[in-house]
Amino acid sequence: MRQHYDAARRDDANYVALSPLSFLKRAELVYSGRTAVTYGDIRRTWAQTGARCRSVAAGLAALGVGPGDTVSVLSPNIPELFELHYAVPLLGAVLNTINTRLEPETVAYILAHSDSMLVIADTAFAPLLRAAFRLNGTTLPVVDIVDAQAHAAFGKSSYEDLAAHPPMGWELPKDEWQALALNYTSGTSGRPKGVIYHHRGAYLMAMGTIAAWALPQHPTYLSVVPMFHCNGWTHPWSMAIVGANMVFTRDASPGKLLEAMAAHRVTHMGAAPIVLQMLCDSRDASAQPFNPQIRVMTAGAPPPPAVLEKAAQMGLNVMQVYGLTETYGHISQCLWQDEWEALSASARADKQAMQGVAFPMVEDIRVVDRETGADVPRDGLTQGEIAIRGNTVMKGYYKDATATAAAFKSGWFWSGDAAVVHPDGYIQIRDRLKDVIISGGENISSVEVESVLYRHPAISVAAVVARPHPKWGESPCAFVELREGASVTEAEIIAFCRAHIAHFKAPKTVVFGLLPKTATGKIQKFILRAAARDLGPHA
Amino acid sequence: MRQHYDAARRDDANYVALSPLSFLKRAELVYSGRTAVTYGDIRRTWAQTGARCRSVAAGLAALGVGPGDTVSVLSPNIPELFELHYAVPLLGAVLNTINTRLEPETVAYILAHSDSMLVIADTAFAPLLRAAFRLNGTTLPVVDIVDAQAHAAFGKSSYEDLAAHPPMGWELPKDEWQALALNYTSGTSGRPKGVIYHHRGAYLMAMGTIAAWALPQHPTYLSVVPMFHCNGWTHPWSMAIVGANMVFTRDASPGKLLEAMAAHRVTHMGAAPIVLQMLCDSRDASAQPFNPQIRVMTAGAPPPPAVLEKAAQMGLNVMQVYGLTETYGHISQCLWQDEWEALSASARADKQAMQGVAFPMVEDIRVVDRETGADVPRDGLTQGEIAIRGNTVMKGYYKDATATAAAFKSGWFWSGDAAVVHPDGYIQIRDRLKDVIISGGENISSVEVESVLYRHPAISVAAVVARPHPKWGESPCAFVELREGASVTEAEIIAFCRAHIAHFKAPKTVVFGLLPKTATGKIQKFILRAAARDLGPHA
Repeated sequence: MRQHYDAARRDDANYVALSPLSFLKRAELVYSGRTAVTYGDIRRTWAQTGARCRSVAAGLAALGVGPGDTVSVLSPNIPELFELHYAVPLLGAVLNTINTRLEPETVAYILAHSDSMLVIADTAFAPLLRAAFRLNGTTLPVVDIVDAQAHAAFGKSSYEDLAAHPPMGWELPKDEWQALALNYTSGTSGRPKGVIYHHRGAYLMAMGTIAAWALPQHPTYLSVVPMFHCNGWTHPWSMAIVGANMVFTRDASPGKLLEAMAAHRVTHMGAAPIVLQMLCDSRDASAQPFNPQIRVMTAGAPPPPAVLEKAAQMGLNVMQVYGLTETYGHISQCLWQDEWEALSASARADKQAMQGVAFPMVEDIRVVDRETGADVPRDGLTQGEIAIRGNTVMKGYYKDATATAAAFKSGWFWSGDAAVVHPDGYIQIRDRLKDVIISGGENISSVEVESVLYRHPAISVAAVVARPHPKWGESPCAFVELREGASVTEAEIIAFCRAHIAHFKAPKTVVFGLLPKTATGKIQKFILRAAARDLGPHA
Repeated sequence: MRQHYDAARRDDANYVALSPLSFLKRAELVYSGRTAVTYGDIRRTWAQTGARCRSVAAGLAALGVGPGDTVSVLSPNIPELFELHYAVPLLGAVLNTINTRLEPETVAYILAHSDSMLVIADTAFAPLLRAAFRLNGTTLPVVDIVDAQAHAAFGKSSYEDLAAHPPMGWELPKDEWQALALNYTSGTSGRPKGVIYHHRGAYLMAMGTIAAWALPQHPTYLSVVPMFHCNGWTHPWSMAIVGANMVFTRDASPGKLLEAMAAHRVTHMGAAPIVLQMLCDSRDASAQPFNPQIRVMTAGAPPPPAVLEKAAQMGLNVMQVYGLTETYGHISQCLWQDEWEALSASARADKQAMQGVAFPMVEDIRVVDRETGADVPRDGLTQGEIAIRGNTVMKGYYKDATATAAAFKSGWFWSGDAAVVHPDGYIQIRDRLKDVIISGGENISSVEVESVLYRHPAISVAAVVARPHPKWGESPCAFVELREGASVTEAEIIAFCRAHIAHFKAPKTVVFGLLPKTATGKIQKFILRAAARDLGPHA
């Protein structure tokens, strides 16, 4: 009877707040002697890694870091950034991993908006950090990560000073809803937004990924996807569950990655399609395919079938996944179906280019007709917006209740991505409802680029859309109207943009002329998109 | 800052109560065309299985089953019992799987104590159910599972009548703490206790098992461990996550199992050590080992190294796990260590006989000195009691707040099992603190057998302990003192017991004589245990 079933209550014995910290706590014991970290000459076991994370946490505590504090990090994929995925949350603090490719203006904005109380930065990024501090007119305490290939020290203390502290004990959050990490979006509709992840979501994401990727015990994982993107798709937490060997290269050039893949017999990695393409292009055509195959999770942009075909030839077993910063990364996977084996290589690659079906930790993915509010038919033709529900949807946007409420309208998270549903239930993205340009795996906000263009004295009207690019997938293409009597060249506009925003965000093409507008004066971007496509791929 | 992180709230978009129902809801879509169920001539896809579960739920709702109602089941491992693991919880009702080997008295007790409002029973168990009803002096509505090998109908409706209903939609619990299943213990200290499982625990158990067992996509799983033991170690829920093919045999004789293993190319199974031993004994010695190996999870009793060695020879890759009904089954696993490869076959089997380290979904396992309350040293010698903490510890005992509070003393669940910790952190069980006898994978309460003995007019004092048994592992051995002038034979006592309790619980040996007692008259069981061991294995 219901009242008897309901009588039993939570107790410390039978209720533990879900947290990915539990995974390292266990790994320290059960994988104690196994290699956790491989980086240059460094080899550390899981016992050593666990102790280092607890030491760094103790060191951060000594610097005053406590529950609810934001700790920002500027770092490439190296062991220190991996360790911080445990050390910072261990204090109840929140890890804010900043994209190191951003321009000083955005870094300055993120440091201020996130209420960061400390920055841990690889010294290679000291100039970027210095510029951001200058823009904010304030500085923050800085802890240097002094890497082998590092530049001069900047902060007053170093990461290894932290790691010299006696390790603190394991203290897990009491509330699984507690914030764990902050990940700023690329700001597709203006300012970047701070996406809050919590311990429960990270735990479930890490667990569900293992089930869906069929991750074995003790994979050798090459850390390629930047940990400042959705915390490396939460892989740093998954890998502790299965006692992986995490291989870091710092330098993510195709040559270095290929070298590491061979030298360490890598079994698993996550990487954007652009990285796969560069690997395919760089590899000696006569080289034997990897055997056993390397299992690769790819996301960030729909991978071109040609890349998937080439990757398969070189021994990469690629599973495409789809997701957003707001969903801790991947929420759908292009789950392989046995009958695809019989298809031609190119037909198989077409299948693999779909965004697929829900991961096991995702409750629901719908594709909704924005007019009627109904699910679109499974016809592979009718477009709708992808809506998502589940425990791996963000806690909310930091200090932005309005944007959070808008994103969570009617109890679903609205992705802003338009997709179709195929008869087999697999979804495929057709277009972006927002005007994001995805170049080399990085999201570029057209609004942000436009705002720079508008600052040029010769430009009166500007709009930026995606143009196909043979290497980067897409590149920003600017359409501009000049002021009466003004004159400027394409190269001058590009140089102007590069002086104000990250180079990868600057337009690669500038088209001059009158822009198409609606009666109310709104620019008709769909016409410009078609025009940019008609230009063909960027040379 | 903390208040900003805490400001974000739960929303339908980002909070979903954890429930294993989600796994079947997803499997219905993403594995729609794959075989889910293989049983005799029956083949059903995941789409069909999902629809059948929703139909059966609709049928149960039509019979009045609703939230918080207990639905009891008496069934062997057949597809219907698997389906009920989803159909019953879908209504918010609680699935009570009853051990079909129990005697009518205990079945009667469980039906009454659990407040069952309906019984779904394979018609093979109609006589057992009829006897239980007679003992209770009441009947309950019965739904017959009319199996191919079934006996005459008993109830007014059949399971297939339920399955003929139009499928209801997916409705998930709002509260992950909601009761899902009831599993009665074997009643080691008297009456069986009803262990409540909730949706959250079942979800995490199913997910964590996949990670720790490195379960691939689409295993072929042979259903051997009875689903009335800890819901088949929660495997029926795990298998939906990975889209397994579930193979059922009904008849669990070694011959039938071996036939199914070969015919369906089984890849995974869970089974008690006694079953492994019977498989080894039954298999033609000249047969080739299974290739690829079949991965086997074994639990219920420490497997003898000799069995592990034989199992390895026949191509079974065995992982021992340990747990209790109160922990949804397994909480520790004998995780394989690479360096064991170099050991001799018998030394390897010794390692595999340890109970190992925590599963990833288990927060903590300690071995605690009962005198000092401290963790025992990792010396492989000092015994302590196993204490467990985590989300896969039961919600509590049904209608037994006192027993629940005792089990959860100081925020830990106390297992009642004594163990040592080896220097590598692996635990190994040394003795049972309670006097459970484990025979053929079934727990037998010495107290229960003793209470029957005490009912015999010739017996004045009785104590039951375990005696080694070559086939069943252990068998009950009774030590009795007779009343003055009374006389009775061993065979008569055994026959008396078999008339009152299940045959497997009846003593296989009776020893006559004065029992060793403490000054206060308490029987010194440790002396009897030694004496039973000295008798050597039962002939």
